[in-house]
Order: sequence, then structure tokens, then C-alpha cells
Amino acid sequence: MHSFKELHHQIESALEQETFNGIPQELYDSINYVVNLGGKRLRPVLCLMGCELFDGDLNKAMKPATGLELFHNFTLVHDDLMDQADLRRGKYTVHKKWDPERAILAGDLLHVISNQYMMVVDDDLLREVLELYHDSAIKVCEGQQLDMDFENSVQVDLNDYMQMIELKTATLFAASLNMGAVLAKTNDQNKKHIYEFGRNMGLAFQIQDDYLDTFGNSDKFGKTIGGDIVANKKTYPLLKAYQMAEQKEHETLTQLMNDDQMADKAKISQVKASFMELGVKESTEHTRDEYYKQAQANLAEIQVEDAKKEPLMDLCEYIMKRES
Amino acid sequence: MHSFKELHHQIESALEQETFNGIPQELYDSINYVVNLGGKRLRPVLCLMGCELFDGDLNKAMKPATGLELFHNFTLVHDDLMDQADLRRGKYTVHKKWDPERAILAGDLLHVISNQYMMVVDDDLLREVLELYHDSAIKVCEGQQLDMDFENSVQVDLNDYMQMIELKTATLFAASLNMGAVLAKTNDQNKKHIYEFGRNMGLAFQIQDDYLDTFGNSDKFGKTIGGDIVANKKTYPLLKAYQMAEQKEHETLTQLMNDDQMADKAKISQVKASFMELGVKESTEHTRDEYYKQAQANLAEIQVEDAKKEPLMDLCEYIMKRES
Repeated sequence: MHSFKELHHQIESALEQETFNGIPQELYDSINYVVNLGGKRLRPVLCLMGCELFDGDLNKAMKPATGLELFHNFTLVHDDLMDQADLRRGKYTVHKKWDPERAILAGDLLHVISNQYMMVVDDDLLREVLELYHDSAIKVCEGQQLDMDFENSVQVDLNDYMQMIELKTATLFAASLNMGAVLAKTNDQNKKHIYEFGRNMGLAFQIQDDYLDTFGNSDKFGKTIGGDIVANKKTYPLLKAYQMAEQKEHETLTQLMNDDQMADKAKISQVKASFMELGVKESTEHTRDEYYKQAQANLAEIQVEDAKKEPLMDLCEYIMKRES
Repeated sequence: MHSFKELHHQIESALEQETFNGIPQELYDSINYVVNLGGKRLRPVLCLMGCELFDGDLNKAMKPATGLELFHNFTLVHDDLMDQADLRRGKYTVHKKWDPERAILAGDLLHVISNQYMMVVDDDLLREVLELYHDSAIKVCEGQQLDMDFENSVQVDLNDYMQMIELKTATLFAASLNMGAVLAKTNDQNKKHIYEFGRNMGLAFQIQDDYLDTFGNSDKFGKTIGGDIVANKKTYPLLKAYQMAEQKEHETLTQLMNDDQMADKAKISQVKASFMELGVKESTEHTRDEYYKQAQANLAEIQVEDAKKEPLMDLCEYIMKRES
């Protein structure tokens, strides 16, 4: 069994060897730029891990795993444009480095190329792989639309938020692991369990993302703590706070969140104080831990010797304990 | 054999019966809106025609044919956004009726759905169908980037323009016919000839599009004649004019095209006068006719009794003689 780090290295090497060329080369250059921005490469590594868990051939999983990363990169290019984000991983986003038209088209082209990569599988697996892939792709689009809708909504229900992060993030985690399992030709029960494992881990991952942005350690986080609060972004802690607050606390928090005049630092510290008073920190940790436990239970159900599950256990733990 | 009109009707009926539903429904509503805007439905009809030419089962071709139309619709939604076009077929474009973010996402979702439709084929055809489809999709993206590059270029070579319209338009015509031929399981020679037929017909189609915008009959064209001239759009007639002009005529035409102060009517009439003097009208007709003849020669090569080729001959003639 390979560790996350080893598989991450394999994916990075594979991506380094892929240079996309075509007409006009400038369009392909923007794709090469995006793909080489780095990142956690979680989705392709999950695919490889799912494959190895069931004794599949990693070599045969490399192309579809890479396809999952290309798909994810396509969605980032379009999401950054929709969110008007200028930076990703400290570098200019495509629409900022080039222009919005380029971002649309580079994303579209990456989407097609990701489809081509998903097809590099044995004939008898082609339909199952593609059905799983398209099903997830649809959910990711739906999740992104919900996310944008939420940013324009005054109030968002916590259940709706959970549905959004499931569609936008957890689905592709689940599908990536499931894809690996399909490539390794395991049984349907195992596929179901690993899908659920990925889904719960994905939810824990996103809640941890939200958690770190508010409650993280600024030395380790890499970004400024409280960015989501300043941007009045709907996150798990904020929506949980609204859910837990009595009417008066609710009004105070709403007023605070919508105050454009307040200095960032003051806003962050006051919102965090309100969160602490409401018990939002503990509540967020609790929910995250529940999904983590659920993921562990899913993993336990998978009919494979325990030693083989270790890399996934390690990954799960890393996701829970990460500070950036 | 069915006529173009009959097959068009079948596609329209099929599309009417497709209502896309999902979460959030508003996202799907924008897809339903686009798909129901109408249009020539050329690509799906070409697919059905290619299928019927080789005695394929039309029922089995309906889903992938519809997929080609959905793909085309996806590209229109994104192209309209990139071109900042407010209207399509007299109705608001998606980014105008909703917002740019919606146009990006509705296009992306349509792209995924089109992929799903392309998969509704027999297992033994799945790989060939998808390879043909993705290959064309890549060319369409490349063509759109070239098109945008040209709009920002001072001078564009006529050969480069031909490459652009081949990628952006002719390729999908060719692939649609070829797709039908694949579904009917004809031999490779026939597939090659019908692809070439579609490619040449597509080039003739686009040149005729450009021709009508400048030299069409305003009573029949449906749009104002000279729109491309007013917008200083690179078209076959304009680029041919630059190619044919001597230095002095070239300078005069360049000045004229870049004159933002001149009234539209005066600009159109002066540019058209310059075109007539240079012999651009005849030259454009000649090139269009050459592609038409080439398409006819490709059709003649196909090993099928002549009677079966009639609907394609008719379509070809309609494309050449159409006035709108």
C-alpha cells in the first residue's frame, strides 16, 4: 500500500509530464498554467487509494485519476471567474492573468480533455466509469449554483448549506474513491461503502475548511483568519450561530455581519466572541467529528483486511487534524 | 428516406418532450429556456440523415443526435456571453435574462448533459461515438478562441480565417454526419467520405452566412444587411477584399472599416461599393460554390444508391440557395 504522500507524488509527476498543446497554443498555455498551479490533488489521490484498496492496478488508474483533477481544475477556473477571485494559491487566476473570455474557454476545453482522460479505461468499465463521472459533474454544477444563490440570500438554512457542500464538494470526493473501486472491479457493496466513506469525509473536510477560516491558528493557516467573516460568507459556523441564537442575539449578529463600516479586525473579534458565547466552536467541532466517525464506520464495513485501510485512515485523520 | 423537414420535426418533438429538472430548478429552467429557443437544428438532423443514409435505426440515433444539439446550445450560451450578445433568435440570451454567472453554469451543465446523451448508444459503439464527439468538441473550443483572437487582430489572413471556420463550424457538421454513419455501422471509407462531405458543406454554409450578411436581400434576410460591416467583423468578403486590394485600395478600405464616426448606412454602402469594385461578391460566390462542388464529389464517392442521397443533396442545395 502507498501512503497519501507517495500517491500525491505519483500524480504530480504524471501531471508534470502532461503538456497540453494545440491551436491556438495560447489557449493551451492557460490550461498548462492552471494545471501546474499545484494543490492538494485530493481527488486523483482518492481515486488511486480506492483502486489500491481493492487490489486494482494503479497504472491503469492514472489516466482517469488525472481526469478527475483536470475536471476539478476546470471547475476552479469557472468558479474563480464567477466569484471574481483574483488569486488562487498565491498566483493570478486565469481571468485575471488573461481575460474572462479566456477563463470560460480554457475551462470548457479542460472539461472536454477531462472527458477524454476518463475514457482511458478497459472497454468493460467504460460505461460505469463515465456514468459515475457525469453524475458527479452534474452535482458539482448544482452545488455551485446553490453556493452562488446563497451568497445573494439574506438567510440560509443550515440544512440547505449541508446539501450545497455535499453537492459541490463531498460528491466528487465520494465519486473519486468510488471510481478507483470501479477500476479495481470490486463488488457493489464495497463500492457503496467507499462512496459513503468519501461523502462523509468530504463533509468533514468542508466543515474543517470553514472551521479553520474562523478558529484556525494564524501562524499555521497560511491565510488571514476571519476572511470569511469579513466577506460575510455563509459558512458552517455562521449558519450554526444563526440557528443557535435567540432572537436578540440573532439580530445583533445580523447587524454585525452586515456592518460595512467596521474595521476588519474589530468585526472578526466581535463575531468570534459572539460565536464563542453561543458555543459555535464546540458545535462545529462536534458536527465535523460526527461525520468523521460516520466515515470511519463506513470504512469498517468495507470487506478488506484492516492493514489495507491504513492509508485512508491516515488521510481521514490528516483532514481532521490539519491546520491549513 | 425522410426529408430535412421531417427529420427537423422529429428533433423538435423530441426536444419538446425533454424537460430538464434538478436542484436548483432555476438553473434547469435556464437550460430549458435555451433549448426551446428553436433554431435550424442542423447538427442533430445531419446525424439522423447520416444514420438513415446507411440504413441505420433512427430511433437509436435520437438521443445522441439530441446530444449534439445540446452541445451546440452549450457553446452558444458561452459564445453569447463572450461576444456580449444580448439577443439570440430575437430573445434575450442567458447572461442578459439572468446573469453572466448563470450563463457560465448553465453552459457547463448543458455540456455534462450532452455527454450523457451521447452515451445512449450500444456498448460496441460507445468508444467510437465518444472519441468522435470529444475530438469535435476540442476543435469547436479552438475555433472559438481563434475567432476571439481575430476580433482583436488588426489583420487576419484569409487562410487563418478558413481554418477558424473549419474548427468552429464545419467540424461539428462533419462529425454529426459521421456520428450517424457510425451509429449505422457503415464501413470506414463511407465514414471518411461523409465526414468530408460535412466539412465542405459546413465551409460553404459559413461562407454563405457571411455572404448573406453583406450581399443578401434585406426583405428575405430577416436581419439588417451590413451588420458585419458596421461591427467591423472579420468575414470572408472583408478578408477576401483585403487580399485582393492593391496598396491604395487596401488603405482606403482599412480607413473606412475603422471609421467610428461615419453613419452606418453610409459605411455599409461605401464598403459594399469597394467590395463590388474589387470583385469580392463574385469571388465569395465562387469559393462557396467550390466547396459545394467538393461536397457533391464527396457524396458521389459514398457507396450507396443515389436515391438515398437525395435528402442530403436537397439540404446542400438549400444551404447554397438560402436567403436567410
